[in-house]
Amino acid sequence: MWFLKIIFVCMVSLSLLFLCILCLTEIKSLDNRQLNANIRHEWWWTWSCSGSRCRRSETPAAELPSGTQCSLQACRLTCGRFGALWPLPTGHTVISQKLLSFHTNNINFDLSSITDKACHEFLSKASQIFVQNLKTECGLNCSFVKETHISVRIRVSTTELTLGWETDEGYTLELTSKGDLITVTIDASTVYGARHGLESLSQLTAVHQCSKDGRSNLVIVSGVKISDRPVYPHRGLLLDTSRNFLPVSAMLRTIDAMAASKMNVLHWHATDSHSFPLQSPRVPQLAKYGAYSEQEVYSTSDVSELVSYGQQRGVRVLLEIDGPAHAGMGWQWGREAGLGDLAVCVGWQPWHKYCIQPPCGQLNPANPNLYKVMADLFKDISESFSYSSGFHMGGDEVFLPCWNSSQEIVDWMQTQSLGRTKLDFIKAWAYYQQQLLRVWDAQVGHSKTPIILWSSHLTDPAIIQRYLDKDRYVIQTWVEKASDVNHLLLSLGYRVIITTKDTWYLDHGFWGSTTYHNWKVVYDNKLPKGFKGVLGGETAMWGELVDQFSLDAKVWPRAAAMAERLWADPNSSSIEAENRLRHHRQRLVRRGINAEAVAPEWCFQNEGECGSDR
Amino acid sequence: MWFLKIIFVCMVSLSLLFLCILCLTEIKSLDNRQLNANIRHEWWWTWSCSGSRCRRSETPAAELPSGTQCSLQACRLTCGRFGALWPLPTGHTVISQKLLSFHTNNINFDLSSITDKACHEFLSKASQIFVQNLKTECGLNCSFVKETHISVRIRVSTTELTLGWETDEGYTLELTSKGDLITVTIDASTVYGARHGLESLSQLTAVHQCSKDGRSNLVIVSGVKISDRPVYPHRGLLLDTSRNFLPVSAMLRTIDAMAASKMNVLHWHATDSHSFPLQSPRVPQLAKYGAYSEQEVYSTSDVSELVSYGQQRGVRVLLEIDGPAHAGMGWQWGREAGLGDLAVCVGWQPWHKYCIQPPCGQLNPANPNLYKVMADLFKDISESFSYSSGFHMGGDEVFLPCWNSSQEIVDWMQTQSLGRTKLDFIKAWAYYQQQLLRVWDAQVGHSKTPIILWSSHLTDPAIIQRYLDKDRYVIQTWVEKASDVNHLLLSLGYRVIITTKDTWYLDHGFWGSTTYHNWKVVYDNKLPKGFKGVLGGETAMWGELVDQFSLDAKVWPRAAAMAERLWADPNSSSIEAENRLRHHRQRLVRRGINAEAVAPEWCFQNEGECGSDR
Repeated sequence: MWFLKIIFVCMVSLSLLFLCILCLTEIKSLDNRQLNANIRHEWWWTWSCSGSRCRRSETPAAELPSGTQCSLQACRLTCGRFGALWPLPTGHTVISQKLLSFHTNNINFDLSSITDKACHEFLSKASQIFVQNLKTECGLNCSFVKETHISVRIRVSTTELTLGWETDEGYTLELTSKGDLITVTIDASTVYGARHGLESLSQLTAVHQCSKDGRSNLVIVSGVKISDRPVYPHRGLLLDTSRNFLPVSAMLRTIDAMAASKMNVLHWHATDSHSFPLQSPRVPQLAKYGAYSEQEVYSTSDVSELVSYGQQRGVRVLLEIDGPAHAGMGWQWGREAGLGDLAVCVGWQPWHKYCIQPPCGQLNPANPNLYKVMADLFKDISESFSYSSGFHMGGDEVFLPCWNSSQEIVDWMQTQSLGRTKLDFIKAWAYYQQQLLRVWDAQVGHSKTPIILWSSHLTDPAIIQRYLDKDRYVIQTWVEKASDVNHLLLSLGYRVIITTKDTWYLDHGFWGSTTYHNWKVVYDNKLPKGFKGVLGGETAMWGELVDQFSLDAKVWPRAAAMAERLWADPNSSSIEAENRLRHHRQRLVRRGINAEAVAPEWCFQNEGECGSDR
Repeated sequence: MWFLKIIFVCMVSLSLLFLCILCLTEIKSLDNRQLNANIRHEWWWTWSCSGSRCRRSETPAAELPSGTQCSLQACRLTCGRFGALWPLPTGHTVISQKLLSFHTNNINFDLSSITDKACHEFLSKASQIFVQNLKTECGLNCSFVKETHISVRIRVSTTELTLGWETDEGYTLELTSKGDLITVTIDASTVYGARHGLESLSQLTAVHQCSKDGRSNLVIVSGVKISDRPVYPHRGLLLDTSRNFLPVSAMLRTIDAMAASKMNVLHWHATDSHSFPLQSPRVPQLAKYGAYSEQEVYSTSDVSELVSYGQQRGVRVLLEIDGPAHAGMGWQWGREAGLGDLAVCVGWQPWHKYCIQPPCGQLNPANPNLYKVMADLFKDISESFSYSSGFHMGGDEVFLPCWNSSQEIVDWMQTQSLGRTKLDFIKAWAYYQQQLLRVWDAQVGHSKTPIILWSSHLTDPAIIQRYLDKDRYVIQTWVEKASDVNHLLLSLGYRVIITTKDTWYLDHGFWGSTTYHNWKVVYDNKLPKGFKGVLGGETAMWGELVDQFSLDAKVWPRAAAMAERLWADPNSSSIEAENRLRHHRQRLVRRGINAEAVAPEWCFQNEGECGSDR
């Protein structure tokens, strides 16, 4: 078939050539028609910066002085101390007032100081992504600007490629211009810091639309100095692919938006009692009995793609296999396979007697075969992910009546000298957790992976120290803002990741019984101060009422609001962030994310005129 | 350039030919790979109907009996009395149990009894849309089925093409089969009824996936009898294009989803104080000063497209030009043009002193030039829309302190022997409304158009009769469920369109201070009984926090839930509707609407197992 393919490629190339010629002709005539028909061409909205705000005014086209900012985006770039940067830089930041036009064809990258091959490859790819983002933002009608040249020099001082809580994500960015030459220098300790620098650089550019032919061009500020590093090392978003399956494409798109907001952890709640979509070559039954369909499965190559796509964008994929509760579909084949019940209560009705949400299911701590199956699953997982920086074992909402309804479990508990009190069941749960940790360490071959668990009865500050080692376990709390659990765990010396239930749960509101937290509420959620154990936080997009079709709007720009809170932790509130947030939302939209609208366009075009941003 | 175009077309055709050959080869080899690699092919989820519910079970592929329903969609088609129909038919409905496979290439339409040319054209186009919908749903991998032939005979008894409250939307549908021949007869009074019949017919088909080669095919029930007509004649959705602009494409897509749900009124809240995106050839200043940009304008050809696209799908576009409040941007050029202030308080700050929401603005009832401008605008509008069935003049939230702050208005009121009490201002408002009606009638040339107004101080049941003729005005109420305003207005003999604020406002929840109304709440909102003045209702997608990117998910499937309430008004509640609603949501998604997810997929695949649908 190869000769056919070659012929086909030739035909397509020739066709494209003809198409180009045709298009150019068409575009030109279309422009002419627009010029005649459009009522607005005699007259423009223009923007000027006054008191950190871009203000709209009406200007007849004839009176447009050269350099007038017909584009709000261009005005925003140099208006106020931080322009359009999101999240706020935390160090010294100076942005000049002047703008220069440029084109993506005239950017070159100097990576000559990077001798490490892997780092060179990473930064070369990061530079391509940077250019691609600018191209996407400028669109098809982007004007070529011959004169200006941009030279971007990137230097890193380490060859570190591990991405975790210890990673130095800081960078400095310096941009100077002389005539038509713009020189950018990004210095960082790691490639991840340098990548953040490129992200900031892209936010120092804008699309300018101020010509009668409808074309746009890119502009960049003529002078910048930024020194920047994040306050918290864990800035995450949870995606749940068990309640509703999310195609890989939706997850990749989400990583793009996370990278644009300098978030660094995609917490992948891959499995739950509803479905087990993750393919495990050693235990194919999990997906076979657990997936919604043969199309709704993550193959090992899907997983590799996610992990490497994320890493290239400074986003680590943190896998969660939830258990012992929140496990059902995918675990129902044990008896048939001669392994006994791997899970109990699976799909039982009436569900509210056996679990918190249907379908029910809870792993069987009494069955030694469960740990053998887990060993195989963990082996597969450890081959696909990099685990030095953490694995999430779930651990929330264990429903004791389920275990209590299993004769096998109750009998086994008796052999362990356990009764049937709440504390006895918690001990059984602790046993499960110890076994799991042992299995993990045996498979991964060392005992260094931090293990993350949801806050639960087992992590109750009154008893946690009996069961969970503070140097090994990190607790992800999902308590309400008013709860004292974070303070108590931190005081005991535990590290915590905070997912404040009544501000950072992105599914709230849609149920009917909870309140939607808009981006302002998300932004204004400050974390406990004075503890070094606070690693950061996550917004959680629980999946019951969302799938690929409404994912973007439910996550963005709310997750980005949390991103600024965790990167910069400013003393200021959402009121001061409003103008920049709206621009960041527009940036996400230009990059292909269907983010929610946050204000009427009039308020966007007239900064400071709509109440809460005054 | 024509010779180039011809060469180009030839090249493309040849390329496509090669591509086809390549694809067929690729698909075949891909299938083989999938067969080997995919863990699920040895084993299937299958569905069977039990007690009106489709239940999932596991079946090894080897044991798949012929005729097993590997597709939940196919199971749903004949499970329960109403299968997958949305909205519920209101008359006699019988659906047989058997399914037949078919392909869209083998459907022919018999319109021989339709002698009226316009009706023939309408139904011919409606048939094409029907076929296109099935093609879209079946997708690219749709198998051809040679044997079965479907013959659809459509008959209408009138040549009526006006679409309004009087339109008879009823239809009967009969489907019989004999061997490989399926005969469908749709009888209706109007083409709109016949179109609904086709919509129901499309809902009697499903995509069936039960073959190892990954291909799908369409199935249809083998016998049907439906007699159906709506309970309420006004089943609307409000779109707001002033707070945020919506491109025409987003509005057309919305019309598709409305048609799929048998809704019939797109209430176009085109203008507000934020922007005036509607181009008026006679008054170009409105869009010139009112649009967000030259791209964010509806040209007269855009309007024609919307109106005719809607009509072809049984959806009438009902235009609203809001006033005297909710008018600002677009009206600020009067003084410059020598016409005096057409509106007052435009953009004034601090806004809360002059309006309910920024930017402020209120039309100037004292300026005779306002009515002259309105005459021109109305003339343009009457040329683009069909007005026998209504025009919406807005009329909500007049903010008296704005008028009170204008010396011109206060002086004019004095000449009208009006003081400055609340009632005096309401009289000024009533004067404005009378003038507007006179202008409208003068332009349209008759006094038959029903005029719709929002409920307000002016429509207060205690005073409405003094100002608004019940035969001329229809009141669209936007009061809360508990309010007695609907009952009072109905008792006075007014016709009302109901937009229950605390159930049918689709923007609620996202503000932070209001509650999101999920589809169940929307569905369970029953209208006042025992009054013939209830024309129906609308869900309202106010536009402050939505634009084209999240529109679909905020509107759908919630608007469809209201559609069933208004079409069928069943005694049953959302609990009984849950399984069908989920299927209708999937149908909208298959047709390209990014509707919100309403449940975990497990609950969709296991009907009746998730609580509220038990």
